[in-house]
Amino acid sequence: MKQEKTEFLGIPSFSSPAASGRGQVAVPERWLMRQLLRSLGDPPIRVRFWDGAEIEPVPGAARTTVVIHDRLALWRLIRHPMLHFGDDYSLGRIDVEGDLVEFLDTVFRHRPRMRSSGPTRRQLLERLQRVRRNTLRGSRENIHHHYDIGNSFYRLWLDHEMQYTCAYFPAADMSLEAAQLAKLDHICRKLQLKPGETVVEAGCGWGGLARHMARYYGVKVKAYNISTEQVAYARERVAQEGLADRVEYVLDDYRTIDGEYDAFVSVGMLEHVGTEHYHILGGVIDRVLKPGGRGLLHSIGRNHAQPMSAWAERRIFPGAYPPTLREMMMIFEPYELSVLDVENLRLHYARTLEHWLERYEAQLREVEQMFDAAFVRAWRLYLASSIASFTSGCLQLFQVLFTRPQHNALPWSRAYLYRDPLHKE
Amino acid sequence: MKQEKTEFLGIPSFSSPAASGRGQVAVPERWLMRQLLRSLGDPPIRVRFWDGAEIEPVPGAARTTVVIHDRLALWRLIRHPMLHFGDDYSLGRIDVEGDLVEFLDTVFRHRPRMRSSGPTRRQLLERLQRVRRNTLRGSRENIHHHYDIGNSFYRLWLDHEMQYTCAYFPAADMSLEAAQLAKLDHICRKLQLKPGETVVEAGCGWGGLARHMARYYGVKVKAYNISTEQVAYARERVAQEGLADRVEYVLDDYRTIDGEYDAFVSVGMLEHVGTEHYHILGGVIDRVLKPGGRGLLHSIGRNHAQPMSAWAERRIFPGAYPPTLREMMMIFEPYELSVLDVENLRLHYARTLEHWLERYEAQLREVEQMFDAAFVRAWRLYLASSIASFTSGCLQLFQVLFTRPQHNALPWSRAYLYRDPLHKE
Repeated sequence: MKQEKTEFLGIPSFSSPAASGRGQVAVPERWLMRQLLRSLGDPPIRVRFWDGAEIEPVPGAARTTVVIHDRLALWRLIRHPMLHFGDDYSLGRIDVEGDLVEFLDTVFRHRPRMRSSGPTRRQLLERLQRVRRNTLRGSRENIHHHYDIGNSFYRLWLDHEMQYTCAYFPAADMSLEAAQLAKLDHICRKLQLKPGETVVEAGCGWGGLARHMARYYGVKVKAYNISTEQVAYARERVAQEGLADRVEYVLDDYRTIDGEYDAFVSVGMLEHVGTEHYHILGGVIDRVLKPGGRGLLHSIGRNHAQPMSAWAERRIFPGAYPPTLREMMMIFEPYELSVLDVENLRLHYARTLEHWLERYEAQLREVEQMFDAAFVRAWRLYLASSIASFTSGCLQLFQVLFTRPQHNALPWSRAYLYRDPLHKE
Repeated sequence: MKQEKTEFLGIPSFSSPAASGRGQVAVPERWLMRQLLRSLGDPPIRVRFWDGAEIEPVPGAARTTVVIHDRLALWRLIRHPMLHFGDDYSLGRIDVEGDLVEFLDTVFRHRPRMRSSGPTRRQLLERLQRVRRNTLRGSRENIHHHYDIGNSFYRLWLDHEMQYTCAYFPAADMSLEAAQLAKLDHICRKLQLKPGETVVEAGCGWGGLARHMARYYGVKVKAYNISTEQVAYARERVAQEGLADRVEYVLDDYRTIDGEYDAFVSVGMLEHVGTEHYHILGGVIDRVLKPGGRGLLHSIGRNHAQPMSAWAERRIFPGAYPPTLREMMMIFEPYELSVLDVENLRLHYARTLEHWLERYEAQLREVEQMFDAAFVRAWRLYLASSIASFTSGCLQLFQVLFTRPQHNALPWSRAYLYRDPLHKE
């Protein structure tokens, strides 16, 4: 069972450090590492090789150190840094001394800005490598890879409502539980849900938003998801909570949504749709939204188009791609949907992830019993690098509220979103 | 003087209605008008010809009537409806019975949706017609055409601060004067201005925002504009108000902005920039914004890319183009600027324009003394069709707040925007 799970992540097991040979780090190896650091914008970090030799691009400024334990790890890092840093960190052939989040944030902040508006040669190559397309079948496989690891694993470190998306902290020191509920309310208020209305949700996770909307806003919800584990959990829980007459969970792809609804909502699914399918998603929304309907998309995004980190895309989120706002608009513009409000909650996702990482670290023994050491390290790296991506501005979190173009029954200002006690602090 | 001003609008004077011949409307003429109505989505309006004959696409549903006074006006309308409705309405050869705004709103609401994401053949033809490019020289001519009509004209119907952009109505029944001040504060709060900071404004109109920022937020402002009349007014007023040491008005193009600023702001200029220059505007922002800087663009926009109405572009706003959000993102994405907040104030612009039209109608005698009857009718049509464009969802108003990607000193929520007494109502 344990070994299976690591293979599931897909990290190939290589020869052991001892077998790959160590000896002293050679002059050309040091030179190549310097070139790599230069291409990363010479971040103020320290690199230590297996023989104790060190490189510091900004002498005296480093607060964190990356340790490369053997020659094979070095050569792999030089060949494809984005992929192999992750894999060899997971395998324990690369370590970080000092705070892992700080190390990653430092590296991300110093990366040179990509000036071109189009993809670079490296990006094009990386795109070619990405073969996990989000067709109907591809999406099932991609989603299975991440979300079907096991509900018991996610239950170790998520909140009670199993919200695996950015929380909303009206006050920065709020608990995760409170902030996840605040997120659910923030979305429901933006959508101006009224009792008796109907809502369709695309990609419902463990079903927390659907239950929240039904319970507190009196709406009927049809919620779609292709993760079998998540839907099984959601169905069990909605029955326990006596909401089964108002919430229906459908184990199917968003492309099959039909019917007519007052509201369309999707939280954390767009990252798995792929820009090549945005016109299909827009068409689904256009097909099912009533004339007075409102919609909300909540998604991780970017300031500038670039592929997902190769490691995260291969090992963690196959087929995922966080879009820019420009790309997101491809969903709305062909159907003349009217964007009313975009809110960027980037720092809220960093805070959410800090909570998750803290809970995760407190459950390491449990995680290691479920999986193995490489899995434990891989998921630590994934959570830590996600924090650093949001704090360094590499990732954004966009909530986009939209309506039909001629829907004029709108609040005069957004003040109604901020009248609850949470925002009074 | 009077005749000059009408020629300035550029409406050609044609032969008089009597000379163009009337007689009975012919069967082919009625057929062509029916085709035109069909292409407009058969709106529930009535068409009356010069001989009293009528057409109603939806019998009994019409509340407004367009009256075509002569044959030449009919043929021109059929040939190029968007252009010639405006011109012949201005010349009094076409009239509207019933409420003009309601008539236009009805027509705009029923227009068939443009399904394609690219431009249609007609749009491409219309783009070819648009020769008023926004080069340095072209921009000067285009801006001169609209904004240098005369300060005394705009003073007749604008508010005391001469705000010729969308006001902000925290409460719908607010006065125009109060709503324009609320708009200035809304922008200053979004920008989080602090005393002693520096601001650059691109396209400052009559300078009201710059003075407001200096007076109430304690910042130093450098404000650019290429309208000679507006800059002359702004300089006079800033001296009168004793703010000349904190506000500098520069008679120059946004492309020449230099220096370093804590905030970049532009309200109602982007419509005159042209998408082909968005990368230049982005480059200017990138060049002058400090690392902790914030920026705000306020612009009329669209849900779906399409050219400005041919009449408005020729007679009222040469070179103007309201962009979609997708197009606006071309300003930010190449420079990795981070969009924090987008607010769509479409209905606020409709309300603003209702105030302007009401004031304008109350000053008709003055306007007619300044110009002539055709000018009076042209500007009535422009204000009324602008209202209808915002109420029918053909036009949007986007306020986009942005920062450098790594600027993390952000408020935790937008609640701070809604804590003033105005929003408590």
